Amino acid sequence: MYDLLKGLRVVEGAAFVAAPTCGLYLAQMGAEVIRFDNIGGGPDFHRWPLADNGMSLYWEGLNKGKKSVAIDLTSPKGREIAQALAASPGADGGLFVTNFPVDGFLSYETLKTLRADLICVRVMGWADGSQGMDYTINSAIGLPQMTGPVDDPRPVNHVLAAWDLLTGAYCAFTLVSALLARHRTGEGREIRAPLSDIAATTLANLGFTAETMLAGRQRPRMGNDVYGAFGRDFVTRDGQTLMLLAITPRQWSKALEALGLKEAVAALEAELGVSFATDEGLRFTHRARLYPLFEQAFAGKDLAEIAPAFDAGGVTWGTYQPLEAALNDPRLFKDNPVFQDVRHPSGLTYPAPGAAATIPQDARGPVAPAPRLGQHTDEVLAEILGLSAAEIGKLHDQAVVA
Amino acid sequence: MYDLLKGLRVVEGAAFVAAPTCGLYLAQMGAEVIRFDNIGGGPDFHRWPLADNGMSLYWEGLNKGKKSVAIDLTSPKGREIAQALAASPGADGGLFVTNFPVDGFLSYETLKTLRADLICVRVMGWADGSQGMDYTINSAIGLPQMTGPVDDPRPVNHVLAAWDLLTGAYCAFTLVSALLARHRTGEGREIRAPLSDIAATTLANLGFTAETMLAGRQRPRMGNDVYGAFGRDFVTRDGQTLMLLAITPRQWSKALEALGLKEAVAALEAELGVSFATDEGLRFTHRARLYPLFEQAFAGKDLAEIAPAFDAGGVTWGTYQPLEAALNDPRLFKDNPVFQDVRHPSGLTYPAPGAAATIPQDARGPVAPAPRLGQHTDEVLAEILGLSAAEIGKLHDQAVVA
Repeated sequence: MYDLLKGLRVVEGAAFVAAPTCGLYLAQMGAEVIRFDNIGGGPDFHRWPLADNGMSLYWEGLNKGKKSVAIDLTSPKGREIAQALAASPGADGGLFVTNFPVDGFLSYETLKTLRADLICVRVMGWADGSQGMDYTINSAIGLPQMTGPVDDPRPVNHVLAAWDLLTGAYCAFTLVSALLARHRTGEGREIRAPLSDIAATTLANLGFTAETMLAGRQRPRMGNDVYGAFGRDFVTRDGQTLMLLAITPRQWSKALEALGLKEAVAALEAELGVSFATDEGLRFTHRARLYPLFEQAFAGKDLAEIAPAFDAGGVTWGTYQPLEAALNDPRLFKDNPVFQDVRHPSGLTYPAPGAAATIPQDARGPVAPAPRLGQHTDEVLAEILGLSAAEIGKLHDQAVVA
Repeated sequence: MYDLLKGLRVVEGAAFVAAPTCGLYLAQMGAEVIRFDNIGGGPDFHRWPLADNGMSLYWEGLNKGKKSVAIDLTSPKGREIAQALAASPGADGGLFVTNFPVDGFLSYETLKTLRADLICVRVMGWADGSQGMDYTINSAIGLPQMTGPVDDPRPVNHVLAAWDLLTGAYCAFTLVSALLARHRTGEGREIRAPLSDIAATTLANLGFTAETMLAGRQRPRMGNDVYGAFGRDFVTRDGQTLMLLAITPRQWSKALEALGLKEAVAALEAELGVSFATDEGLRFTHRARLYPLFEQAFAGKDLAEIAPAFDAGGVTWGTYQPLEAALNDPRLFKDNPVFQDVRHPSGLTYPAPGAAATIPQDARGPVAPAPRLGQHTDEVLAEILGLSAAEIGKLHDQAVVA
């Protein structure tokens, strides 16, 4: 944990990936993040993957370093407590991250009566409030039909919930931005982040939409070819599959050098009357001519020969390794100082990451595990809401909290 | 444009997707973002997709609302100017976003001699400084081998550069967070955000790594099946492909209702001695038994029959539509108030988005197009660096700026 966000008190009333990711990023930068859930857990409390004892590895991954409060959110008294938490006190409190509906008991209009300068960041599915999740948003914008081998027309869903993750990071950004604005003006606001708008704006920012307007149809699927440049998967003589990529002139010339392809490519350039070095688009246009040269070069060498030449030349490449191999890769997991061994609520001890970014001049604090569900209920009710031990005891007796 | 970040002066010395996305998000929230590039454009200036006149739709998408300064970054004088810009003056200046190497002329150590409280957010490939891009990081963590149809072992790259995008959003978050810390303590810092650590931490946050440690191997590929719950693509009688998803009990019961599957599924539950409603994992475990029921139900109905029933029941579903259809979808592009018609540097006029999030209480300002390369060189040299007209003229004469 770093302490950039020391002093912030963020309350998270959320589930699934996007909003909890936002809370996680904030916690890893030093904010106090209090997550409330229904007693027994929210809709994501049992999400796969699971430990052998049935605990969710997913839940304990996304809620590291947060405090947990369990509330009966179906009861009026429980809802009142959730509202009071959402509008938590403190100079840098009143920061609420949620995926609850716009119009429900956690609406901005309701909450701002409790704290006028509340900042509420709300993850949504579709911008109009209708039900949408990462996979259905993704199917609506064409990417599954652009993904996968050229010889297979079936749509291919992504396995990584990219829209959820991007929305979570974007929400963390908007929350701290709104806090800066509140410091300046004293005003809070609601910020709505629908997955549908995250996806639509992203495809526009990357030029996909303008391209489709001009062409009348979306980019066709092209397997693993990198669009508009040179890049693809290749197989070495010893059967290793790797990804090779060359966008800049330097990346291109280094790849040719390492593969011994300078002369063959020069001959092709002469034949076609083009220069591949200075225009990555030409490499893409003529990729059907270039691929056989590369395939042949790779087929003549084992990975053990190629790797040192690639690394010495600064070529952009990498093998396709399964995650079990990545776990032993010192650059990713094994010796990565971002990870620390932590005992988790599942009872298992395994490496867990702190913040994804590294601040060389600051010490990384310890990585804190996820809480047990309701672990901080009493602490939070006492310290944040100022309830007495008797009042808290009564709430337990009434099964309003757990 | 919203004005949450009014008064921030951010300088971007960057290329490709991640760091420019960070700058874009900051600009859309009201920061002044000054991008500098080599004269003639950086390595991403001609990236596809292109307009008919050769201008990059990609570049003009990712640089909307920024100012552009063109500098000869190979010359000592040009490098000095870039350094002075990176350490720009102003109470909320000295904010630099880059993907230049850790050790080069834009190193944090160099820049902080120019401004002690500098905040430098640096996108990297691999954390050790070696060359890595989205596609090679992705191939290193196993996702391409988890993606695509079960009956095809070929690795499938993602088409959306998810690691770049997530890194960009995360950098915007860390930059504002570091500014909040600077307001508190007066101290700046360098923040390094390597794609490799963004990817490794994400797979850990979602439970992929713990799952792989326990199983000894990564999750096998499973086509479009949603892991640990119920979800997949189905085809209707009239040949429409749609994505159906049910994670919560409500999503599940609504889907069964709309498809007329309550009795058939109850019979299967009785046979298996399970309850699908309360445990989404069981729906996944027994999906081979459930799929035929759903396939049959969809094969008996046209989309026009199913859609109203799904929508009335709040079912989570969506068709697979190509991007050209999405462009006519009022929820995504056609009537989406996030988009405005803008004339771009390519000379084309087409809708471009402002911020992905919506702040209901604040007015959306106009969407500003990307600059022409070097459009603000003189203005920035005069206003930010305080150079005289004569000095600026001399720099032009020497081809140090353009």
